[in-house]
Amino acid sequence: MKRTLAPFLFWILSVPCLGQMTNDTVALAKIYEEVLLHGTCHQDLRHLCKNIGHRVAGSASAQKAIEWGKQRLLELGADTSYLMPVEVPKWSRGKTEYGTIHFKNGEQVQIPIAALGGSVASSLRGQVLMVSSVSALEKMDTKELAGKIVFINKPLDAALINTGAAYGNGGETRWRGPKLAESKGAIGCLTRSLTLADDQFPHTGAMEATGIPAAALSAYHSQWLSDQIKDEKDFVFEYHLECENGGRITQANVIGEIKGSVYPNEIITIGGHLDSWDIGEGAHDDGTGCVQSMEVIRTLKALGYQPKRTIRVVLFINEEFGNDGGITYAKKSVENGDRHLAAIESDGGGFSPRGFSTQAPDLRYEQWLKWLPLFEPYNLHTFKRGWSGVDIGPLKNDEVALFALNVDNQRYFDYHHTANDVFENVNKRELQLGAASMASLVYLIDQHFSPLP
Amino acid sequence: MKRTLAPFLFWILSVPCLGQMTNDTVALAKIYEEVLLHGTCHQDLRHLCKNIGHRVAGSASAQKAIEWGKQRLLELGADTSYLMPVEVPKWSRGKTEYGTIHFKNGEQVQIPIAALGGSVASSLRGQVLMVSSVSALEKMDTKELAGKIVFINKPLDAALINTGAAYGNGGETRWRGPKLAESKGAIGCLTRSLTLADDQFPHTGAMEATGIPAAALSAYHSQWLSDQIKDEKDFVFEYHLECENGGRITQANVIGEIKGSVYPNEIITIGGHLDSWDIGEGAHDDGTGCVQSMEVIRTLKALGYQPKRTIRVVLFINEEFGNDGGITYAKKSVENGDRHLAAIESDGGGFSPRGFSTQAPDLRYEQWLKWLPLFEPYNLHTFKRGWSGVDIGPLKNDEVALFALNVDNQRYFDYHHTANDVFENVNKRELQLGAASMASLVYLIDQHFSPLP
Repeated sequence: MKRTLAPFLFWILSVPCLGQMTNDTVALAKIYEEVLLHGTCHQDLRHLCKNIGHRVAGSASAQKAIEWGKQRLLELGADTSYLMPVEVPKWSRGKTEYGTIHFKNGEQVQIPIAALGGSVASSLRGQVLMVSSVSALEKMDTKELAGKIVFINKPLDAALINTGAAYGNGGETRWRGPKLAESKGAIGCLTRSLTLADDQFPHTGAMEATGIPAAALSAYHSQWLSDQIKDEKDFVFEYHLECENGGRITQANVIGEIKGSVYPNEIITIGGHLDSWDIGEGAHDDGTGCVQSMEVIRTLKALGYQPKRTIRVVLFINEEFGNDGGITYAKKSVENGDRHLAAIESDGGGFSPRGFSTQAPDLRYEQWLKWLPLFEPYNLHTFKRGWSGVDIGPLKNDEVALFALNVDNQRYFDYHHTANDVFENVNKRELQLGAASMASLVYLIDQHFSPLP
Repeated sequence: MKRTLAPFLFWILSVPCLGQMTNDTVALAKIYEEVLLHGTCHQDLRHLCKNIGHRVAGSASAQKAIEWGKQRLLELGADTSYLMPVEVPKWSRGKTEYGTIHFKNGEQVQIPIAALGGSVASSLRGQVLMVSSVSALEKMDTKELAGKIVFINKPLDAALINTGAAYGNGGETRWRGPKLAESKGAIGCLTRSLTLADDQFPHTGAMEATGIPAAALSAYHSQWLSDQIKDEKDFVFEYHLECENGGRITQANVIGEIKGSVYPNEIITIGGHLDSWDIGEGAHDDGTGCVQSMEVIRTLKALGYQPKRTIRVVLFINEEFGNDGGITYAKKSVENGDRHLAAIESDGGGFSPRGFSTQAPDLRYEQWLKWLPLFEPYNLHTFKRGWSGVDIGPLKNDEVALFALNVDNQRYFDYHHTANDVFENVNKRELQLGAASMASLVYLIDQHFSPLP
């Protein structure tokens, strides 16, 4: 049975101003109810995480996810679904990875490490030199660093309320640290994981390409290693990394559409990235963004809503390690003469939604701000200028309004890029509320945006 | 080293209006930073959950928690701490509990159940009659029910955004169901757990006293049992409940104070309830409220803040099964001539704070609403009239402003009153942000409230 918006669509189309707001209110209520009572995004996420698993770009499991996404979008109600070829890197971690601390007294301790994306394989040993930050490393002399393994032990700033800001501020440890260490003569690099949790999960992630082995330590083991160094224990560190760089291969963005009934050439893109890192299951990063975007299609269909503009779900490939999917999609969009009114990305985890941030032209921004009261009953309170998303970022031009779904991100960096980013750590209702918020914004854009003059 | 508010206290005391807001802004920034960087509430919660465990009223572990709380409040900086004797019931679950389904073909299936608070022990067997709700049960004839075990299988309403409202609306299944079933001639009662999760944890909780055995089934097993009934399987249900009612004994509210430096007789009470149910560890319900309240004392002390009014932390005993602690505290308050300006309770779980709700006289309410912008940088957006708390509720009079810390409650009823309400399911930062929000409200009340004319 279809639960339908049709009875009040007449009113939406014919009554302006207060009437419009009233009917938008009813539409949003229907959307949230539909997702909370009948949403399939949680079971789609279970399938993606448990039956497919991690989806690092270039892997067989990423390919399996691509095929599944194409098929599933049709099942959920897309008019059409297709693949857009994208060149991606193929790097693999290998079967095992760990570090060994060889103390001078003969004692050995194994600790978990996670190779950073693109790291070379390694079994080298060396003395460890701890530095407090990338800035400190920059000021150091190559003489001090030559032949050493540099350990950058900088915690994220726990005083920041927004954990995304803490991650952004602290990200250079992982992104710039290893290459900088190499340029100073170091033979290897270890980085403290970018997390606010005090646990034993090392966090992987992308870095600037470097020829030296580079791996992350958990917060717990960073503290432990730091203690050994402060206690002047005599030891060397040994890498066990089996990584392989396998060149580049062709995979794909997955695209599903509902064609616009009135303005088919005006496009609203919604998406997340289908690839993930290769430890854990890529649940919050970014399985949730994918299944939420797919849920938008299902919800509009279930409500019998026929969009005026084309609604396009894009499951981007390789956000994590070069943004190939996002760059390719934007390039093809220009080539095809797509007119994007808006794009919405969910890539902050499947947590309770708090609002949206936008990169939008002023006219769009002003129009959008007026919709905030419609979302307050669903506990979305922050509509602000800010970041949109890695995948949709390349779409930026003078017309398109780019939006990020903003969620409560206190827990995000407990899971991000770790073996702990698994389905069990995603709450069904928090996930659904994010999907309903995206569907609601899509609905309002479809109803009220039109091309800028 | 004390991190101190003293440098800007001068400004707070001397500069009105905009200056006041500016300095309140600085004070809140200091408070949140102090809690996020140096807070001990998470480790206090670990101790309470892991070293003490559940704390059902009347139990030895509740007594252990009382002794710990009294000592810990002093360590955290209270001038004084003491116990207020409270009469509480002593009911115990016994060592094991489960249900057995005996099918006519000889097959037996054991399923998890949780005795509702105060249930009698039982090993009786009977046929199960499923009803859709308490309302449906009310309309039924005693002839239909005589000799049967009534199974009330009503799910909570997942379409409501506020899970607390879903719980409130659906609560009569547990609270009224068993006694109503008894009055209609039933020999036992089974209730569907009050949860929005689809898992295998049965949820216990209080009910109106009844002489028939009463227990909850998980959502999963409610569905399973419902399927057996719909498939017309022929079976009887057998209770295995070893509960004991042990009369009443004396335990205590735990109270810690910082005496007001200017108006010691004006009191701001903050608290949670120290008792919990006896399955799980009472982490979210309500260990978090206790350790957050204790964190307020630690934080004000660490910042060198000398309150003008008396700040009193109360760890209430037996909220769950009769509210003896709250009722006793209010009664003693009247007897002692305490003048309460405000009371704040945290009893919604240790999740990200979203705001406060209040029962307050109009004058206080208007004054308080103006503080909302101070909290918005910390993602608190909802200041509204509404429920305050079970424990502090009895304090209500014409002067006192009662506040509940409101948190993101999407996950709360996944854990509430189950074996899954454990320390591991509380996020450190979400817990800390709640504590900092309470400390901030205490600070503002201490600075700006004065007795009503």
